[in-house]
Amino acid sequence: MNIRMIAYLIGQMLRVESALMLLPLLCNFIYREDNLIAFLVPIVLLAALGTALTFKMPKNRNIYAKEGFVIVGISWILLSLFGAMPFLISGVIPHFCDAFFETVSGFTTTGASILRDVETLPKSMLFWRSFTHWIGGMGVLVFTLAVLPRANERSMRLMHVMRAEVPGPVVGKLVARIKSTARILYGIYITLTALEILLLLPKMSLFDALCTAFGTAGTGGFGIWNDSIAHYGSVYVDAVVSLFLVLFSMNFNLFYLLLLGHVRPVLRNTELRCFLGIVSVATLTIAIDIRHLYPGLLKPFRYAFFQVMTIISTAGFSTANFNDWPVFSRTVLVLLMFIGACAGSTGGGIKVGRIVLLCKSFVREIRHMLHPRSVNVIRIDGKRVEEETIQGALTYMATYLFLFSAAVVALSAFDNFDMITNFTAAAACFNNIGPGLELVGPNGNYWLFADASKYILSFTMLAGRLELFPMLVLFSPSTWKNH
Amino acid sequence: MNIRMIAYLIGQMLRVESALMLLPLLCNFIYREDNLIAFLVPIVLLAALGTALTFKMPKNRNIYAKEGFVIVGISWILLSLFGAMPFLISGVIPHFCDAFFETVSGFTTTGASILRDVETLPKSMLFWRSFTHWIGGMGVLVFTLAVLPRANERSMRLMHVMRAEVPGPVVGKLVARIKSTARILYGIYITLTALEILLLLPKMSLFDALCTAFGTAGTGGFGIWNDSIAHYGSVYVDAVVSLFLVLFSMNFNLFYLLLLGHVRPVLRNTELRCFLGIVSVATLTIAIDIRHLYPGLLKPFRYAFFQVMTIISTAGFSTANFNDWPVFSRTVLVLLMFIGACAGSTGGGIKVGRIVLLCKSFVREIRHMLHPRSVNVIRIDGKRVEEETIQGALTYMATYLFLFSAAVVALSAFDNFDMITNFTAAAACFNNIGPGLELVGPNGNYWLFADASKYILSFTMLAGRLELFPMLVLFSPSTWKNH
Repeated sequence: MNIRMIAYLIGQMLRVESALMLLPLLCNFIYREDNLIAFLVPIVLLAALGTALTFKMPKNRNIYAKEGFVIVGISWILLSLFGAMPFLISGVIPHFCDAFFETVSGFTTTGASILRDVETLPKSMLFWRSFTHWIGGMGVLVFTLAVLPRANERSMRLMHVMRAEVPGPVVGKLVARIKSTARILYGIYITLTALEILLLLPKMSLFDALCTAFGTAGTGGFGIWNDSIAHYGSVYVDAVVSLFLVLFSMNFNLFYLLLLGHVRPVLRNTELRCFLGIVSVATLTIAIDIRHLYPGLLKPFRYAFFQVMTIISTAGFSTANFNDWPVFSRTVLVLLMFIGACAGSTGGGIKVGRIVLLCKSFVREIRHMLHPRSVNVIRIDGKRVEEETIQGALTYMATYLFLFSAAVVALSAFDNFDMITNFTAAAACFNNIGPGLELVGPNGNYWLFADASKYILSFTMLAGRLELFPMLVLFSPSTWKNH
Repeated sequence: MNIRMIAYLIGQMLRVESALMLLPLLCNFIYREDNLIAFLVPIVLLAALGTALTFKMPKNRNIYAKEGFVIVGISWILLSLFGAMPFLISGVIPHFCDAFFETVSGFTTTGASILRDVETLPKSMLFWRSFTHWIGGMGVLVFTLAVLPRANERSMRLMHVMRAEVPGPVVGKLVARIKSTARILYGIYITLTALEILLLLPKMSLFDALCTAFGTAGTGGFGIWNDSIAHYGSVYVDAVVSLFLVLFSMNFNLFYLLLLGHVRPVLRNTELRCFLGIVSVATLTIAIDIRHLYPGLLKPFRYAFFQVMTIISTAGFSTANFNDWPVFSRTVLVLLMFIGACAGSTGGGIKVGRIVLLCKSFVREIRHMLHPRSVNVIRIDGKRVEEETIQGALTYMATYLFLFSAAVVALSAFDNFDMITNFTAAAACFNNIGPGLELVGPNGNYWLFADASKYILSFTMLAGRLELFPMLVLFSPSTWKNH
């Protein structure tokens, strides 16, 4: 393993985190808050460690898949450890386990919180909390690649790093150069975020618009008010947030195609069509199911659409306490938790693209059973899908289930909560959503879990955000043996 | 599609069912019960229809995989429809939907019941109810093949019928001739059942021993007392039943190997070892978890082992109301529901063999990600597993999950019960177990579900017992198109 190159790239990532922390520091200045030191310490530490690790560029710059996973795995753990320092130093979250949980929840765009009253937090802390969603949404290493000097050298094979961080069964380069791909992705990301901020400004302060847009863009879901988006009580805000959740649930490659003027392939994109189909059916059936709770013809649709979008995009905002909705609506929402957004978006979950692949491979299996000698190729968007990709998606699903089951059993061993709390807490963390049902419902909270459970949930958040393998490779002993 | 041959084989199956119904009729005579007509009507109808369909053997005796699935799918539905007649005619279960549910539950060896007081039933009805477990356990078509004239003709390709009915990712012939394979399987089945009856006799009447042994052998779980096996309150009965559940959870091929004197491959069998490993770990952890509920050192182990075996074997007997056990034990039991028994046994669930295959394919995926150029072959018991088998097992798992999720959502639409009731009712029916948790717990019952829910659960029981594909092929429009 090329340890020097791993250290070099992690060092670059640490420098990026140091620079990004200047923003909450600025926020601290603007609002004249007295927790300057809480940001200064990690900024200096990150800069020092980052500079030490990147002082000399390694001669051997070759890295392979293994290094890619290790870099991403270690980066995300370090990112969260340093990211938790402002909460710890300021005393806003005095307990290490809690601060780590909250920061992992932020970067992984989960939005699960151990804070029972967010409204008492200093603004700079609220800003940092929401900003972690934005950083984690598109990926800190993708950002690092966008600013990395000499990132376009062919020998560096940085594609492995990008593949390990960007979610989805197939990650392709938009353009030949990896640095340009990373820049295009961040360009789209920044533009869409800015657009949402502008659209939100008529109904809220700049600070609120920034934090809400960060939470939407990363599909994170941390609120800066105890009652989340319900605080604004505005149809307009609900509409803007839920429509932007649709955009941030889409594969970013589609926006690039639109920029190039290719409208037709976007409209015909299978994954997008399936995603919109699922959203429509879920919204319609839930609206019918909750019609007696909300008077009028449109209100059930408004609440149903917002909640469907916030769950399937894996953001996890709320405008209603869906824990009180009828069992059909709750069941559909739990199902949406697992489906998740589209591949290559900022959302989590299994991803609609994988579900489409699984459905097609199931139809093929039946066909193969009926006509054993026929050759069946799976095509998506007219393109033949490699057998390796299909096998990968199927194995992903199986691995996902094993880890999920193990997490639910572990939670039931450490805390004696009801099964729905354990099941939906694991589902909400694994799929990076945030709220679940019962004790972890929209009005509930994660503070009551034991420390061991919080560490397990933190692991599932990281495993979910990074799509299992970076965390599994990092903790697998065979990675660290010399081959 | 060879419709004539499908009709011929279904006809043979109907004649077999007619003959098997003579046993409860005999029971009716012995106990001088007045519901003679309840058995006579279906016996005559089955014999007449069966004879009509088998009057002339078709000239073209070629059948393929498609016919195999269709024969098995239709057979099991007809089997249940005729099997429900005694309950309906005698008025023991007056409502058609309930009688169908109860009979499907019997043949699929589920053991989920809509009867709130089984102790009021006539003995002949209790006998038939338990006997359906025994018939469904090894498969009625396997039995039909064992007695079918000219079944050894090569042109008949009856292997397709056997493959569609016997559970497991790979179904192999024990011996070259399909008829002999079927006879060996039923020989082992009858011997083990007889052995259990003999061992149970010291502690119960012959009638009780027969019914209990039928329920154990088919891993069905219908009780003839309202409190199931707890009625006997005997450590000896608990021990005999749970040990025979271990035997009936094993792949029957292993018994054949033992008969041939091959002890070593049985002891080294990967699936069996994993199965016993899972049982041991589950028993140990549950015993520790429930130690405060049962005084003494051995009692927690007795109740834990019985409940673990009855759930993982998918029988579903009970000696304790595990719905009152702590959340950890309940979570582990729900997990065991999905794992199920070994392939080629009479048990249901996903099957340990498939789980082993999924674990191996997950390890391979990681290896492949780290070393993309390496070629990795999966071996089980020293034998190379075909890529097709692996893909099949993975697709099976994905399909299984889709159907399971759809069933849970459908149940939540028709009944407004809590999520745990819906989830475990679907799990208990799909995996052919019987009792779930909450309203369908060991002291609960399925009578309170709406008719629509009962039909959905009946479908899941059939889909689970026949491992999805026969039911899916039967209800897929493309099967009935002319190719």
